[in-house]
Amino acid sequence: MEQILRLHYAPDNASLCIRIALEEFGLPFEPVLVDRSTSAQKSKQYLSMNPNGLIPVLETPHGPMFETAAILLWLADKEQKLIPTTDSPERAHAMQWLFWLSNTFHASLRMLFYPNQYSPNDAEPLRTATRARLIKQLDLLEAAQTAGWRDQDGPTIHACYLAPMLRWSGLYGGSTDWFELSRWPKLHAFAQRVESRPAVMRAALAEGLGSTPISSPSPCNPPEGTAL
Amino acid sequence: MEQILRLHYAPDNASLCIRIALEEFGLPFEPVLVDRSTSAQKSKQYLSMNPNGLIPVLETPHGPMFETAAILLWLADKEQKLIPTTDSPERAHAMQWLFWLSNTFHASLRMLFYPNQYSPNDAEPLRTATRARLIKQLDLLEAAQTAGWRDQDGPTIHACYLAPMLRWSGLYGGSTDWFELSRWPKLHAFAQRVESRPAVMRAALAEGLGSTPISSPSPCNPPEGTAL
Repeated sequence: MEQILRLHYAPDNASLCIRIALEEFGLPFEPVLVDRSTSAQKSKQYLSMNPNGLIPVLETPHGPMFETAAILLWLADKEQKLIPTTDSPERAHAMQWLFWLSNTFHASLRMLFYPNQYSPNDAEPLRTATRARLIKQLDLLEAAQTAGWRDQDGPTIHACYLAPMLRWSGLYGGSTDWFELSRWPKLHAFAQRVESRPAVMRAALAEGLGSTPISSPSPCNPPEGTAL
Repeated sequence: MEQILRLHYAPDNASLCIRIALEEFGLPFEPVLVDRSTSAQKSKQYLSMNPNGLIPVLETPHGPMFETAAILLWLADKEQKLIPTTDSPERAHAMQWLFWLSNTFHASLRMLFYPNQYSPNDAEPLRTATRARLIKQLDLLEAAQTAGWRDQDGPTIHACYLAPMLRWSGLYGGSTDWFELSRWPKLHAFAQRVESRPAVMRAALAEGLGSTPISSPSPCNPPEGTAL
């Protein structure tokens, strides 16, 4: 990379997926805190990088880019790591699950965490229905025959993406009683495997996520404070 | 390709995006009708290809694959067409918008078309709130500085994906009064440009979509009948 990557982040936000990936790639980067307590992600300057007003943004040599999964895939294709190459027979299913994580599981989690953005007058019923959908989605992922990355030892961008989402499932969105990771043995093993990786431990240390940040998460306590 | 691609489709479903792309690539394929009138997409055989029970599935030499945007991207990377290559400076923004189309715009449209799947007891309020979000999303896309594909003459997988979504916006999800394409001049020009492409005209003919299927759509009247 000609120029240092700058990651606009907030602790335990979707930027965590990118931080973990950057650690896995061994790429140097400059973290830039987005102050959510002042809604800095809605500032004119930030919106010029991401008009959606969402975290993260990664500043690249080709300009700032948004969308968590897009950033993960772009980095992986550049580095030719953490994803099957475009000529690999594994590529098709890798793409399928990356989009599923983004438009199905992540999209559902956003509805659980921010129901007012979707149905302002019916937030709690929406949350209840969303929890039921999330359980089905995790059942589906647990049973999937084509998600080799779920059981794989080495790092993948799918793991960088899913691991924080499992963490958040156990922490945010009102009652977390619906989420019992041991219900999904393969995902439970995944969580324990991922959080033992040095790259994930470095990211967890940087954002104050504790020692079992994926399999048994506690609220984050980052050095710079938080405004979730 | 060693083996013919098989596209499991239903007329005017998300499979339309893939059909248009296959026509743009000039790839031969075998369309396989999924009979929605008998919920064939929920059959055991179909779920073995896509456990989500959604259309489309593309059968590839590497197995069946699901997720519309994943299929588009996989095909484009294989054919090295309709997407900037992985070493191109344009790749980052191309990825960003592909994921945005999938997890933001398409995800919102699904909530408009199938509100009962998201909040069974509050379908109409959810639809109302979703229409307001869709308008903001289209405003954002109209204003975007980095969406070169929006104004580009040649085909892109983004165009294959967005064009059917603009069509559906004008046809489905209850009242379509919210959707007036001329409100977004760049998107209006996009729609007219796309529907004049021979590949799109072939796809429109195959699925009975009429002569202005994107800019001024009418309900589909496919040769094999429909069960939307």
